Amino acid sequence: MTIPTLYHCRDARSFRVLWMLEELEAGYRLELLPFPPRDRAPGYLELNPLGTIPLFLEGEARMTESAAICQYLATTRGDGRFAIAPGESGYAAYLDALSFGEATLTFPQTLVLRYAMLEAEARRVPQVADDYRQWYLARLRGLEAMLAEGDHVAGGRFTAADISVGYALMLAEFLRIGDGGLPRVAAYWERLRARPALGRAKAAQLKEQAA
Amino acid sequence: MTIPTLYHCRDARSFRVLWMLEELEAGYRLELLPFPPRDRAPGYLELNPLGTIPLFLEGEARMTESAAICQYLATTRGDGRFAIAPGESGYAAYLDALSFGEATLTFPQTLVLRYAMLEAEARRVPQVADDYRQWYLARLRGLEAMLAEGDHVAGGRFTAADISVGYALMLAEFLRIGDGGLPRVAAYWERLRARPALGRAKAAQLKEQAA
Repeated sequence: MTIPTLYHCRDARSFRVLWMLEELEAGYRLELLPFPPRDRAPGYLELNPLGTIPLFLEGEARMTESAAICQYLATTRGDGRFAIAPGESGYAAYLDALSFGEATLTFPQTLVLRYAMLEAEARRVPQVADDYRQWYLARLRGLEAMLAEGDHVAGGRFTAADISVGYALMLAEFLRIGDGGLPRVAAYWERLRARPALGRAKAAQLKEQAA
Repeated sequence: MTIPTLYHCRDARSFRVLWMLEELEAGYRLELLPFPPRDRAPGYLELNPLGTIPLFLEGEARMTESAAICQYLATTRGDGRFAIAPGESGYAAYLDALSFGEATLTFPQTLVLRYAMLEAEARRVPQVADDYRQWYLARLRGLEAMLAEGDHVAGGRFTAADISVGYALMLAEFLRIGDGGLPRVAAYWERLRARPALGRAKAAQLKEQAA
């Protein structure tokens, strides 16, 4: 099997892919870039003109969407151990949670990050950061409801969908948005963060030097 | 096969699912809600406490993410005619474009919609609407690059991934953000909007009365 290459910034969305690769115990090449790569790693634009991370390369595959890359890896590697197949119970919930983790739980947090922290003082917009902090916490109640049915978001076992959602919880911790006092969400994140593969992914990104 | 039910607001993200159902020539029940349902269709919160649309119900499947529902329908119906299967060329691009259409091309536009149009005058934030209008147009250049390789975003044929991306282009037209003068994007949208199933989806949402 081809060894994939992952372009990654520490703790950014591309962390999902690193975590997935560690769950699979797959070999990979990690290219760690300073954040934001658009400004700080100009050579990267030749590889990915959008300047976004992740960039994932493996044979004919060239992907830039973190939840999609996790789904791809879960399906094509590890005998599908981290995927739920069509026809298997939980397939609909699996696809839904893969998308929910990114589109519904992560994007709103990038507004908090941008308008409360990354922008220069004069361009910060506390109203928008507050709007999307609330937006995130409201959507998190949907996760609390999902977890009433089991310890994982789909199919009663750990899958790539838990990585998609779990990364959103990791980002919320970093941004100090918190877990909205939702007990199932809090317990779920404790379970996920205790996974050895998450610890290995954290260690791997510290070992590498910025390009 | 169970007849699915789709909760939908006119021209909102749930339009992707309506379009997919029409491509499949599947039977469905359409429940049209006034926008935003959170405020204007309070009974809906009993069905979907998040208040978001779409809500898609079919047998054990209960889904709320529009791109994921399209992927689910494309895999489970129509003999996979609108899906790209693992192992088939273009599988990686298919998954990537499904996610790209929603997380990367649609979410930024919701910021334009919110802070330039939906919010009360005093809460509008032109800076944020401008930031995400530019953000969208920058990402659209990624689509222009994808289309250099063919008329569709994955596998050389029309799939659910084109519906995910196509809806973002439909929204950009509605918001008058436009196509950034990108010729392949403009031609692609003309091809998509000419599809009879898109026309049938447009007609179906006009036939229904608001609940």
